[in-house]
Amino acid sequence: MANTQETTRILRRLLAEGMNSRAERLLSRMRPPDRGPVLSGLTPPEIRTVMDLLFEKRRAASTLKELPPELLPQIFEALGDERLGQILARLELDDRVEVADQLDPERRDRVIDLLPENRRSELLQAELYPPQSAGRVMTTRLVSLHEEMTAQQAIERLRETGDTLETILYVYVVDDKESLRGVVPIRRLVFAPPERLCSEIMIHNPVSVRADADQEQAAALVSRYNLLAIPVVNEEDRLLGVITVDDVIEVIEEEATEDMYLLAGLSEEDRIFSPASRSIRKRLPWLLANLGLALVAASVVWAFQSTLEELVALAFFMPVVAGMGGNTGIQSLTVTMRAITLGEIAFSSGLRAISKEVTVSVANGFVLGVISGTIAYFLEDSAVLGVALFLAMVITMGVAGIMGASVPLLLKAAKLDPAVASGVIVTTTTDIVGFTTFFGAGTYLLRVWS
Amino acid sequence: MANTQETTRILRRLLAEGMNSRAERLLSRMRPPDRGPVLSGLTPPEIRTVMDLLFEKRRAASTLKELPPELLPQIFEALGDERLGQILARLELDDRVEVADQLDPERRDRVIDLLPENRRSELLQAELYPPQSAGRVMTTRLVSLHEEMTAQQAIERLRETGDTLETILYVYVVDDKESLRGVVPIRRLVFAPPERLCSEIMIHNPVSVRADADQEQAAALVSRYNLLAIPVVNEEDRLLGVITVDDVIEVIEEEATEDMYLLAGLSEEDRIFSPASRSIRKRLPWLLANLGLALVAASVVWAFQSTLEELVALAFFMPVVAGMGGNTGIQSLTVTMRAITLGEIAFSSGLRAISKEVTVSVANGFVLGVISGTIAYFLEDSAVLGVALFLAMVITMGVAGIMGASVPLLLKAAKLDPAVASGVIVTTTTDIVGFTTFFGAGTYLLRVWS
Repeated sequence: MANTQETTRILRRLLAEGMNSRAERLLSRMRPPDRGPVLSGLTPPEIRTVMDLLFEKRRAASTLKELPPELLPQIFEALGDERLGQILARLELDDRVEVADQLDPERRDRVIDLLPENRRSELLQAELYPPQSAGRVMTTRLVSLHEEMTAQQAIERLRETGDTLETILYVYVVDDKESLRGVVPIRRLVFAPPERLCSEIMIHNPVSVRADADQEQAAALVSRYNLLAIPVVNEEDRLLGVITVDDVIEVIEEEATEDMYLLAGLSEEDRIFSPASRSIRKRLPWLLANLGLALVAASVVWAFQSTLEELVALAFFMPVVAGMGGNTGIQSLTVTMRAITLGEIAFSSGLRAISKEVTVSVANGFVLGVISGTIAYFLEDSAVLGVALFLAMVITMGVAGIMGASVPLLLKAAKLDPAVASGVIVTTTTDIVGFTTFFGAGTYLLRVWS
Repeated sequence: MANTQETTRILRRLLAEGMNSRAERLLSRMRPPDRGPVLSGLTPPEIRTVMDLLFEKRRAASTLKELPPELLPQIFEALGDERLGQILARLELDDRVEVADQLDPERRDRVIDLLPENRRSELLQAELYPPQSAGRVMTTRLVSLHEEMTAQQAIERLRETGDTLETILYVYVVDDKESLRGVVPIRRLVFAPPERLCSEIMIHNPVSVRADADQEQAAALVSRYNLLAIPVVNEEDRLLGVITVDDVIEVIEEEATEDMYLLAGLSEEDRIFSPASRSIRKRLPWLLANLGLALVAASVVWAFQSTLEELVALAFFMPVVAGMGGNTGIQSLTVTMRAITLGEIAFSSGLRAISKEVTVSVANGFVLGVISGTIAYFLEDSAVLGVALFLAMVITMGVAGIMGASVPLLLKAAKLDPAVASGVIVTTTTDIVGFTTFFGAGTYLLRVWS
């Protein structure tokens, strides 16, 4: 990686001097994922030349699928429809779906029309599955065998598949109706007696996933059972495709990004180097919604205007109440959300989780309330301020614990993503509860103690 | 998963009636990761019986390594030192390290002394590597071949490894000094002409990772190059072990948890069902540090006491300034942190990232400033309030963008985890900047315009 800039410079010089075959050799010595950063340093005409060189050596497709998304528009621009169609045809189904998704609709239709019939219909079929479903990330490059084939026949069949062999880890065994019956790890097949039937050496009832299930479910199964690939089936258990572990890793990384992004109210398409205009447009609606909620919190303070005028020191400690409530809520929220994502919590154990989080946050609220209440009392020489702050801290942090643990569980029970808006619901609620208890207690104590 | 409770009930009845062989059959039909939830519903004596049954069928080790960490203390209690040692000896190195880590130090030493010599020395060796390093998560169960072996000899060697065969995906090729020279995917080996030398069919310069490197680096390489396993070497390139993709998935999940946890100031050991007392102890120090920072923000408000007394409406809009600044900062922080974790950003492109985030947040600050400033002006009929709020929003959100993007980059440059304390640094700074500009502008305008 350190020599990316150096490699880019050499490549550009070779291209400028027309030494294309040397440029091609340089590129072919690199691993596909390492070509992306180098390509991003080239001009559009250079990119076109490089893609042509790669295409001739059948390396264009493997390069394209490894490129960072922000580089794709430039590459698309540098390539003609026909060349793009040829590259697309060589991609595995899941990568084909992903690349086609990045094209603008009009061009997409033109390019898809140029695909060979079987590649086109496969693509259109995959696009019928919901976004982020298993059907969208599966590949159809798999070997399925009938249960009555022998090991010998199976191996011959495998030899026929030729160059794709190395990406195949399991062979799947189906019955007359093409229903999935079992799986044979390829190593087991190779060392089995030649006359054995597939049905005798296969693992029965393999773990599988429905094509319309969320990709996250496929990833969770692969992770849970330590698989290298998971078969994808339809509602009648017919084998449709397979999701391999490298795609599962991508799904897990994507889902982690999604969780963090949703918590912060960010859209998936808002990445570090996406255009500023897009980031502004994507973030603004969420910030506006937040502004609305902040104004609700403001109106709570407004309602206590006369109390504030009487004891202006209450305003000093507003950041303490809001900050501690928010932090406590986010802690409970993070622990709960992570437990949901990693499958450590079911709805049935939800009550246990909530009661634990409340215990923790009330206990910490008590400690922090005593400390901050004492400080407030001595700084302002006001018992009202000290006691109101103590009460507000205990109650607000308790509520923050309840909200932090229950909001994601409720969202999940409602079949929503537990991360959606959790953060803002929790922090806004704690702000409102915090200011209400703080100023409410202050108002009451001012009346009673004077 | 739905029938865990049902299975637990049946298992308990079988155990109560002494039908141990039926209980054993029930357990053996389950996949190892599914046994954990069932075991967690048993009493200690039942757990002991179950572990004995599993042990006799050589299933105890595979069950133990799949158990959720919070269940381990109970299991350890139910097992004698000797039995635990026998189970530990059957675990692969990475799982052995992990389980031994969970034992209290005294018992750990006793149990390790009971291990066969080679298992013990392997374990003690692995524990010399830093926590979360590649050396701690590698397994030593691998097949390495000399480069001058033929394919035929290699396959015979593989047959000898017997039952572990199915977990082996690659064979590694070494030279006289045991230095890693290449890798042969097992499928390629099987279909190669028998007399070919390993050195002729191997892939040269395989991707490898140093034993003392962070496990995250191993995971990033496996993810980047779509590997199924990565060899682990020492500083002289000697082959020490291998990390398989299932462990890489665990690392990726752990690291995502760690990022989210660090942002919220949580400790790794603080999980949804860890004892409340531990969660309280782990969270309190961080909350105390936060309280200190919130008091700094409070002192900013205190410094503007006389302004507040003159225009108490300023207090109403404190939650708006603090909330919008905090949200904007967290958005920039999340985008930047995720880009760092996924390797999309280098320090050299850091300035570009920061300038983009500032552009986005100032633009959004302008829009939100106009809206909230206008609302404030009309509600309170105060131009001072409206203009001060507008200025505070633009400046605070701009600073939030700078901080959100630069804090994690600076932490990374200082070789710290970019997530450590980022959240609290960003939100505290925006609070302080926000209140200072809001009250500062208010004070100035009150003086000038009256």
